[in-house]
Amino acid sequence: MKIHVVAPITTPELSRAEHFTPHAREDNEVVVSILDDGPASIESQFDEAVALPDIVRRAVEAESAGADAVVIDCMGDPGLGASREVTSMLVLGPAQTSMHVASMLALNFSIVTTGESVLPMFHDLIRRYGLTDRVCSIRPVEIPVLELHVDGRLQDALFSEALKAVEQDGAHAIVLGCTGMRGWAELLTEHLAQHGHGGIPVIDPVITTLKIAEALVDLGLTPSSRTYPTPPVKTVRGYDALMDVVTR
Amino acid sequence: MKIHVVAPITTPELSRAEHFTPHAREDNEVVVSILDDGPASIESQFDEAVALPDIVRRAVEAESAGADAVVIDCMGDPGLGASREVTSMLVLGPAQTSMHVASMLALNFSIVTTGESVLPMFHDLIRRYGLTDRVCSIRPVEIPVLELHVDGRLQDALFSEALKAVEQDGAHAIVLGCTGMRGWAELLTEHLAQHGHGGIPVIDPVITTLKIAEALVDLGLTPSSRTYPTPPVKTVRGYDALMDVVTR
Amino acid sequence: MKIHVVAPITTPELSRAEHFTPHAREDNEVVVSILDDGPASIESQFDEAVALPDIVRRAVEAESAGADAVVIDCMGDPGLGASREVTSMLVLGPAQTSMHVASMLALNFSIVTTGESVLPMFHDLIRRYGLTDRVCSIRPVEIPVLELHVDGRLQDALFSEALKAVEQDGAHAIVLGCTGMRGWAELLTEHLAQHGHGGIPVIDPVITTLKIAEALVDLGLTPSSRTYPTPPVKTVRGYDALMDVVTR
Amino acid sequence: MKIHVVAPITTPELSRAEHFTPHAREDNEVVVSILDDGPASIESQFDEAVALPDIVRRAVEAESAGADAVVIDCMGDPGLGASREVTSMLVLGPAQTSMHVASMLALNFSIVTTGESVLPMFHDLIRRYGLTDRVCSIRPVEIPVLELHVDGRLQDALFSEALKAVEQDGAHAIVLGCTGMRGWAELLTEHLAQHGHGGIPVIDPVITTLKIAEALVDLGLTPSSRTYPTPPVKTVRGYDALMDVVTR
Amino acid sequence: MKIHVVAPITTPELSRAEHFTPHAREDNEVVVSILDDGPASIESQFDEAVALPDIVRRAVEAESAGADAVVIDCMGDPGLGASREVTSMLVLGPAQTSMHVASMLALNFSIVTTGESVLPMFHDLIRRYGLTDRVCSIRPVEIPVLELHVDGRLQDALFSEALKAVEQDGAHAIVLGCTGMRGWAELLTEHLAQHGHGGIPVIDPVITTLKIAEALVDLGLTPSSRTYPTPPVKTVRGYDALMDVVTR
Amino acid sequence: MKIHVVAPITTPELSRAEHFTPHAREDNEVVVSILDDGPASIESQFDEAVALPDIVRRAVEAESAGADAVVIDCMGDPGLGASREVTSMLVLGPAQTSMHVASMLALNFSIVTTGESVLPMFHDLIRRYGLTDRVCSIRPVEIPVLELHVDGRLQDALFSEALKAVEQDGAHAIVLGCTGMRGWAELLTEHLAQHGHGGIPVIDPVITTLKIAEALVDLGLTPSSRTYPTPPVKTVRGYDALMDVVTR
Repeated sequence: MKIHVVAPITTPELSRAEHFTPHAREDNEVVVSILDDGPASIESQFDEAVALPDIVRRAVEAESAGADAVVIDCMGDPGLGASREVTSMLVLGPAQTSMHVASMLALNFSIVTTGESVLPMFHDLIRRYGLTDRVCSIRPVEIPVLELHVDGRLQDALFSEALKAVEQDGAHAIVLGCTGMRGWAELLTEHLAQHGHGGIPVIDPVITTLKIAEALVDLGLTPSSRTYPTPPVKTVRGYDALMDVVTR
Repeated sequence: MKIHVVAPITTPELSRAEHFTPHAREDNEVVVSILDDGPASIESQFDEAVALPDIVRRAVEAESAGADAVVIDCMGDPGLGASREVTSMLVLGPAQTSMHVASMLALNFSIVTTGESVLPMFHDLIRRYGLTDRVCSIRPVEIPVLELHVDGRLQDALFSEALKAVEQDGAHAIVLGCTGMRGWAELLTEHLAQHGHGGIPVIDPVITTLKIAEALVDLGLTPSSRTYPTPPVKTVRGYDALMDVVTR
Repeated sequence: MKIHVVAPITTPELSRAEHFTPHAREDNEVVVSILDDGPASIESQFDEAVALPDIVRRAVEAESAGADAVVIDCMGDPGLGASREVTSMLVLGPAQTSMHVASMLALNFSIVTTGESVLPMFHDLIRRYGLTDRVCSIRPVEIPVLELHVDGRLQDALFSEALKAVEQDGAHAIVLGCTGMRGWAELLTEHLAQHGHGGIPVIDPVITTLKIAEALVDLGLTPSSRTYPTPPVKTVRGYDALMDVVTR
Repeated sequence: MKIHVVAPITTPELSRAEHFTPHAREDNEVVVSILDDGPASIESQFDEAVALPDIVRRAVEAESAGADAVVIDCMGDPGLGASREVTSMLVLGPAQTSMHVASMLALNFSIVTTGESVLPMFHDLIRRYGLTDRVCSIRPVEIPVLELHVDGRLQDALFSEALKAVEQDGAHAIVLGCTGMRGWAELLTEHLAQHGHGGIPVIDPVITTLKIAEALVDLGLTPSSRTYPTPPVKTVRGYDALMDVVTR
Repeated sequence: MKIHVVAPITTPELSRAEHFTPHAREDNEVVVSILDDGPASIESQFDEAVALPDIVRRAVEAESAGADAVVIDCMGDPGLGASREVTSMLVLGPAQTSMHVASMLALNFSIVTTGESVLPMFHDLIRRYGLTDRVCSIRPVEIPVLELHVDGRLQDALFSEALKAVEQDGAHAIVLGCTGMRGWAELLTEHLAQHGHGGIPVIDPVITTLKIAEALVDLGLTPSSRTYPTPPVKTVRGYDALMDVVTR
Repeated sequence: MKIHVVAPITTPELSRAEHFTPHAREDNEVVVSILDDGPASIESQFDEAVALPDIVRRAVEAESAGADAVVIDCMGDPGLGASREVTSMLVLGPAQTSMHVASMLALNFSIVTTGESVLPMFHDLIRRYGLTDRVCSIRPVEIPVLELHVDGRLQDALFSEALKAVEQDGAHAIVLGCTGMRGWAELLTEHLAQHGHGGIPVIDPVITTLKIAEALVDLGLTPSSRTYPTPPVKTVRGYDALMDVVTR
């Protein structure tokens, strides 16, 4: 099995295969690629707009290279629909996947994310996925994506906001609201337990999506071709690198 | 990994380990148990009522015997909540799991199930799981659970109703509406493709749930203890076999 | 008219005919029965699981003994669907009935119940009954069912939480969230009025359900046999006492 | 007990005490009044507009005359809110009451009403009462209110449309969609049973509302004064007959 | 173009043509009329009941006098449906129009209105218009309609509640909740900007409705005659002034 | 006033200023631009992906050139959010605008669009805009965007599908589902009237959006900067033409 992680950004160090391999099954070869053209990180619909064409290109290339599935490494699920339209394999986004998994395990969930500016994107996704009644609250840590790893601020803010989600908002589960928060689920679970809230699931969205992808690949399930029909062939100006791989 | 399938019925031949092992990962030892006390099959809320105590007993016993997860082998998800309350492991039901998976892959889905009499149970589950807007239609084949395998009727009825779901109702995916329909997903997918509807996902609920369980066990995710708190200790009359294992 | 109250617990002193007779019409003979097998009280889905078979037995026996209606004396409405399936008479649950009555009288309502652990059960019922948009808040008094009557704690906690529901949450009506709180509606109404909140309806669920049952019996209305179809005859292992009365 | 039926029309023969007395409890004295000013029947929002002031006057007069409750005898529930604001007693409307009762007894319900022109009014009420997901279909018999009783057309059309609601639309219960259809519930129930659909509840809205009113009067429940606050005193031009009774 | 503003009250000084003309296009002649019979202001469903007949009369008269559209100058949208039924022109209400405009511009909106007593009317309208998920909060300034202009209280209260809506409730836009607050949008926008919340749209409902009316008149769009069918001709007692103009 | 129409395609003849000028106010100078890079037409999420960067560039350029508003000339509303983030002016999309206008005028509406393949995009938009309960049906004419004008097929198919929407589905209004159907509203309105359905509003989405834009520009209303916050400055690789204008 080969699962390709597409990090929809141009910053090289944020997503590496060794981040995923420890969580992958032995029979799953994880490959990671970033974009040639696109934003350093995604924190707006504008950032998504300039990420989209190259996300789709990476997805098509992954399929050509034998991937069984693509996982988009961003909680905005950018390019999910377009990539599903132009490939025949499984493509998953971490927002959709992790919110559905949270809905399987708990009455409701809160999302702890980067900054207030991404809240509208989350509300938009939640409405599209039909999960409005499941969302307890969305709390930002107010740290930009590219600074999540630079100093020790993330731990304090993440722990503090997740605790408020549980104690003040009534959250039954926590979804980490940025794939750049990868790796914090276990520590946060323990932190919550130490404060009297054992057994609150904390969902690491991109790792969860990788594992769900493994399961769905085994099952042979791919996105509905009726929801994501193959686009009609037509002239596209520009985007030569993309059109080269799509039209082959 | 050890995943325990609890078939919430007393009919021995319907669920056997060899039904699941071909789909399980090599590192997953699948065990199946049926009930001592309960109904021959589940087709009503009454049937569920007399299945519940022994489902919970089987779940507790499975955990004691080292199971990492329990999968309840019935599309009514009977005993899902109670079993989650009295265990600390993962417990999944095929209705909840497969409907969320379908929602990840398609705009909407139709359910093809056994008889009209189980429609209210489905509508009840769909409301509880908050997926009303995702359900396109529910179509019965009008074959009782215990007769699904006895003659050739299932194939014709299943193919016919699924095709109507796609062509008349507008379904983008199909969820098999009884775990006794296990094994038909591949053939039905081909049948739909032969009629011009390639790429419609057909979800085999109990096998899908088994695979999602494998993924969630790897992730260490279990149901929220806030949604499913441990019941307070109290006197229970009767149900000695159950209370023996719960109170140990 | 004969209305049978089934208290789905094994604790004898909590539900007695004299609790209901003062509220019943003169032409209504109220009979109360408790369970032989089951829990001392219901505060979890597990408790419900071990109450269900005997609730259904009591409902069937009541119909055989000439009851016009059964009222299930628990805010979880346990066994409501199964009892409706195997009888032809009216069966009502206090959660469903009182929440619909509250919806007739007020823009929204808050529920004041026993402990935080039953909140998920309420949310589940509210989703099933389609009343999510009507619920203002659910507030627990944090007193176990079996201790509601043992000391003076209930009054203070009930008054305090109901007042918070009105003043802080914006409740337009209050539904008592445990049938064990029977009898407190009038005093709580006065308490709210003394604090400047006259005219807030306080609904005593089981008494309200008894009265609605009287009305519906007069009207000859019973649950839909399409929503609650008669279960197909099939083998059931165990539950002899129940199967004896169901299959007669 | 004294329950006052306000028929919000000026046509004298449509609502008479003897229509209600056979259904009322012996201790309930039913009084009926019609309007001095208003429409001959209600089939539009315009008709409601010219009925409202006198409906409110009749409700206030009823309370002054000792009524325990007012039932508005029209499926548009005209004047329900305004009458609740200016009185302290119970006021019920048959649309709200009967749709909530139907929701207690069945998964969904269809409404069989007079003409297509009143469908928007029903959809408006259904949205206000939050019952959109409960409504299966609304079918008109295409007979004006004032002709419901003049020839034999109603029976055929009512039977035919109700049968279609059950067989084609999947209705689990039927609500008669005009209080002028009072008295047809029993015959329609039999008709459906003769066509293989026994046990489908048919709800006669105004009679059902009368009986629910009896129950709620016994319980001392009245509409929330927070949802229906007493209007501030202010100058009103015209409507002397109404203002005389309101301001006394 | 001629747009007629119907102020559904009998207080002469509150709505004058010069309030609207500065906002109207040059080719739009704005005419304003108030009621002969009706309330001094509208703050309850009762007030609406006694305003309705004359609102409808004013709408019909406006059409006869050549109006292209009527704008009802009250946030309860009283008489909107009835006026649409008996005319062929455009009729708009400021609640419906401004809440839809707010929904085009922002994720959610808060309403700042007069008193707590009108909150139920707003919730009722919001449910009818299907915008429940768009409303962030409704905050009253607790100043009666007729006192909005008498002293300086409005500015402080309006600024304070709008700021709380933005900072505490999370509002992305503000809708002024009474047409008597006409003219405050610009100042409130500046006030919010001075407190660090630039770019929050503040919607002046009646002026916005006037402008949307101009656009829809240009487009030739009028309300659906299927949603608002012409009422059948029938006898109406009283309301001679109205019936004279309707039946001509 | 200057309103800029951005046709998010590279096909020059489909959107020209003379298409819009006859509908614009005299004081409104309409400018139209198409994309340098992008698809010939938009019929998939893939097409949208390759249109987005240049749509945003055109919006930014329009603002720099003094535009008061941008109207995106495509029913997928592509780039609406991103364009709102990076400009301070009004930006409107025809899907959002026309569906809200339809909701102001009718109980529900049907959309008649190009092909079945765009239905998922509509359902996605409808969920995001929260208008699911307003949509009666979506019917395709099965003509590709670029062939809408090439032969006489459109009129027959459009008339036929709209009539089915009204007669079979129960539509109260029609929204044309492709901005390439611009200009057909009047003829379709007449066609429906000739078949007995006078008074059904037919909404031409892009013209309607142009007119609503004129109204909102007069009002000084722009999208909420809280819903569409200015994206943080960051490195973007590629998209030089866009980044040149955004960062100036």
